[in-house]
Amino acid sequence: MERTTIPELEEILGKEVPCLDHGFVRLIDYMGSDESIVQAARVSYGKGTKKVHQNRGLIRYLMRHQHTTPLEMVEFKFHCKLPIFVARQWIRHRTASVNEYSLRYSQALNEFYLPELDVIRKQSKTNRQGRSSETVPEELQQKVFSILERTTQQAWEDYQELEQADIARELARIHLPISLYTEWYWKIDLHNLFHFLKLRLDPTAQYEIRVYAEAIAEIVKIAVPLTWEAFEDYVLYTTNFSRFEMDIIREILTQLPAHINWEELAKSKRLSSREAKEFVDKIKDHRNF
Amino acid sequence: MERTTIPELEEILGKEVPCLDHGFVRLIDYMGSDESIVQAARVSYGKGTKKVHQNRGLIRYLMRHQHTTPLEMVEFKFHCKLPIFVARQWIRHRTASVNEYSLRYSQALNEFYLPELDVIRKQSKTNRQGRSSETVPEELQQKVFSILERTTQQAWEDYQELEQADIARELARIHLPISLYTEWYWKIDLHNLFHFLKLRLDPTAQYEIRVYAEAIAEIVKIAVPLTWEAFEDYVLYTTNFSRFEMDIIREILTQLPAHINWEELAKSKRLSSREAKEFVDKIKDHRNF
Amino acid sequence: MERTTIPELEEILGKEVPCLDHGFVRLIDYMGSDESIVQAARVSYGKGTKKVHQNRGLIRYLMRHQHTTPLEMVEFKFHCKLPIFVARQWIRHRTASVNEYSLRYSQALNEFYLPELDVIRKQSKTNRQGRSSETVPEELQQKVFSILERTTQQAWEDYQELEQADIARELARIHLPISLYTEWYWKIDLHNLFHFLKLRLDPTAQYEIRVYAEAIAEIVKIAVPLTWEAFEDYVLYTTNFSRFEMDIIREILTQLPAHINWEELAKSKRLSSREAKEFVDKIKDHRNF
Amino acid sequence: MERTTIPELEEILGKEVPCLDHGFVRLIDYMGSDESIVQAARVSYGKGTKKVHQNRGLIRYLMRHQHTTPLEMVEFKFHCKLPIFVARQWIRHRTASVNEYSLRYSQALNEFYLPELDVIRKQSKTNRQGRSSETVPEELQQKVFSILERTTQQAWEDYQELEQADIARELARIHLPISLYTEWYWKIDLHNLFHFLKLRLDPTAQYEIRVYAEAIAEIVKIAVPLTWEAFEDYVLYTTNFSRFEMDIIREILTQLPAHINWEELAKSKRLSSREAKEFVDKIKDHRNF
Repeated sequence: MERTTIPELEEILGKEVPCLDHGFVRLIDYMGSDESIVQAARVSYGKGTKKVHQNRGLIRYLMRHQHTTPLEMVEFKFHCKLPIFVARQWIRHRTASVNEYSLRYSQALNEFYLPELDVIRKQSKTNRQGRSSETVPEELQQKVFSILERTTQQAWEDYQELEQADIARELARIHLPISLYTEWYWKIDLHNLFHFLKLRLDPTAQYEIRVYAEAIAEIVKIAVPLTWEAFEDYVLYTTNFSRFEMDIIREILTQLPAHINWEELAKSKRLSSREAKEFVDKIKDHRNF
Repeated sequence: MERTTIPELEEILGKEVPCLDHGFVRLIDYMGSDESIVQAARVSYGKGTKKVHQNRGLIRYLMRHQHTTPLEMVEFKFHCKLPIFVARQWIRHRTASVNEYSLRYSQALNEFYLPELDVIRKQSKTNRQGRSSETVPEELQQKVFSILERTTQQAWEDYQELEQADIARELARIHLPISLYTEWYWKIDLHNLFHFLKLRLDPTAQYEIRVYAEAIAEIVKIAVPLTWEAFEDYVLYTTNFSRFEMDIIREILTQLPAHINWEELAKSKRLSSREAKEFVDKIKDHRNF
Repeated sequence: MERTTIPELEEILGKEVPCLDHGFVRLIDYMGSDESIVQAARVSYGKGTKKVHQNRGLIRYLMRHQHTTPLEMVEFKFHCKLPIFVARQWIRHRTASVNEYSLRYSQALNEFYLPELDVIRKQSKTNRQGRSSETVPEELQQKVFSILERTTQQAWEDYQELEQADIARELARIHLPISLYTEWYWKIDLHNLFHFLKLRLDPTAQYEIRVYAEAIAEIVKIAVPLTWEAFEDYVLYTTNFSRFEMDIIREILTQLPAHINWEELAKSKRLSSREAKEFVDKIKDHRNF
Repeated sequence: MERTTIPELEEILGKEVPCLDHGFVRLIDYMGSDESIVQAARVSYGKGTKKVHQNRGLIRYLMRHQHTTPLEMVEFKFHCKLPIFVARQWIRHRTASVNEYSLRYSQALNEFYLPELDVIRKQSKTNRQGRSSETVPEELQQKVFSILERTTQQAWEDYQELEQADIARELARIHLPISLYTEWYWKIDLHNLFHFLKLRLDPTAQYEIRVYAEAIAEIVKIAVPLTWEAFEDYVLYTTNFSRFEMDIIREILTQLPAHINWEELAKSKRLSSREAKEFVDKIKDHRNF
């Protein structure tokens, strides 16, 4: 018996995917594959299911029904370089293992995040936590950039002065800005990684962490293509309607001609017959809650 | 300052809610309330938001957008008595604290779960993991009941014989059936409890654990009425459509008269104007992914 | 039945314990007590143990033998105000719930940590991660203080300028130093809190987080006095010897007069007879591994 | 760049290590090695530490000082077959991923644990949770064995009868004994695996789970030999003394000749000079708490 190996991953192992001005993500190690998810799912389903479900179908079934424990059987380890303010959002995902560069032990490096002019925006009026989709005058962009640059360089010079005076590193760093780059190893299983990606690929996530989420998504897509496809179809790009919203939709649908054959329609649109049936159950409210 | 107290909960504290033939659930202790969730959410939103969001609106907003960390601020501790096979499903929810009665230290009691005749069913043809919705002849029900009763009583007599021979308790118990009742204290926060309830209130959950989930749901409803309402509307009774299913729905909707004002319709059905706008975005696919 | 209440805690509920120059810790809510730990432990031990163990003895037994699951039955919720660099160390304790003030939603306040002159030290020569125990000349202290003060005030002025230009808050903050104060609600169970305290009360922990650990320790001591005492005796102030170190100790002890009665000696020093026996087993290596 | 590979592990991958009468443990997949732990530790320590610490020394330092986060970078996945009562103890280790054979989906197999005659013992008089070290008469062993065998075979026959009547599998199984074998995939990182092993290799752990812990320990020893050695020396075979016990030891040591050079003694017994210094600090109570 041999370990699961993904040849396409071996090629990109260790290669830096650049993120922002000085950051990167690189895959360092991994365990498992689409096949491992199938294997773990089948121990629950027992003998004789191999013929019934093909791998892709089984993975899609798991994802559609939120049977996510088999996803935990796949693990990724990344090496990341990222600004502290991004690290602070990222670390809130608790179900991961982290080893971070420590400024108590080691000297800081002169690397701070400075945004590209184009992503310098005003506060959004509609989204209290984000930035506006409108660009701002170049003059203002330049001014903001200058302020950020001046401030970080001053902080860096002060840090060097404190270092030269041999002040304890754990103190000499406390005035450094949260745009300073840090590094870490980050290890996480696929179930929890999908949760991270769902939140951090979202358009409302801060641009600077989204850049990292997108870099990781590209790697995961290569690693587990079948599971990634199912994740997009049944998790990432789904639409969830509340109880009241469904009332509206169902009321509207009664205005449609009665003879619409939803099940046939569904099958004509790439849904398997099992999915088509589930779809009709949802539309017609045949589920028993 | 005083601890959050929920007078309605104080009245039911410690009272057993019977479950199955010998089991129960009872609330032993709790921390927090609807108010604690609001308080935790507001530390993120900062000064000045108090007037903007009323409590109910804020809680509904959190639930609709899966901002679930404030839910972790509420904690419940239950005392439960349940058959081992139910305990085995239950314990798979890992983010909880458990102290269970141990048969290594203590003697087993003569309490085994025997199903009521009516819930003895055949294997479902459509749901590989469940039982059929059709009842079976009373004669068969009786026969099954007799087998289960005979078998558990034999196991109990054997256990007593081994106990009398002073065989180590950790060994004397190994032939006891998984229908034996056990007891535990179970402590969990509201976020993780909602996850448990979503899975275990589902019609596909095994009947015997659903009984416990329903008993707990009744208690939670009393404890955090606003949050429970939002949980029902935005989590428990929602409908999730895959990318392809939405394609079908959107195509069908193009066959409707163009002049339907979805936003007005939504407002006429109890949706707030903010929700109505979100609803239209979902229907029209205005979200930018 | 009523909730466990600790009258001594009710008195300090909500009161700020000042930490560093602008920070604080205050207990907001709690669940459980020494009594809850005993209750949870007894469900494992079953009927009839009540007379055998008194509460204090049972708690000490649990702590001595690392039976820590009953400790999870006690929960505390704190409101803390702390510098970002302290928050970054603190958040590494993953088994807790956190809601933090967000600078994406809310404006920063003009509050930065500036160390008292006396704690400004040089890098330790013996401890690569810490600061020296020797004081530095007052002149150097003043100089360091001035640098830190100047730098944070510059950052604050720049922040205000960016705010006035209505730059998105999530960007306007990125040059703010990690000495900026943040706030959060932090909820954790006693088992995990003890782990936090063991690490952060340690003399090698950074001074600025130790201040918070000490404030929390004082509160816990009031909340669960019996458990705290056992924590000090059997966890916090214990000494752990490696296999080889024990070889040395045992060899040295052979040089002592043979007639030393270790068990009697132990009993004369406050150890219970059970503990005295355990002590002799450890010294004489009577454990069977 | 290539994934960490451990040639010695590749040879045993997938091979069953028999446990009890029908059970086994086999390693299915893994990620990381001693080298990965060193790599993760060094990101914290930064540039320039490579020469100072050799790998073995660094790993021993980490283990001695409970810097366990780098251990989380190593992951193992096992396939196990084990009796339900063992699974029930095992699953209490929550920080692992599990996919278990489900008797709701699949038929039970006729495999039950029956103890070898020699491990059938009476209840221990000194250890309330365990079995006695004394053997019992062969006649009693035979009698116990017969009872267990008879009872499990009766349960099996009843199960078959219920299966033939097509009773729902989730019900037909409820009278099966906890000695029934189940199977699962179990994935865990090295830090949490060490915690599992420390508890389950302990002489007070139930014999039947200890058998599995020992099988896993043999595999881990091959996988990460340097880390395993450090685990034995600094965790598994250590001796922990309470505050009061240390008072006794220190008092006794004052009776020894004053001229004992503890540091030299330590060095003569395989301790590094750093460890020797730490040892003296512990003996003389030079640590500052």
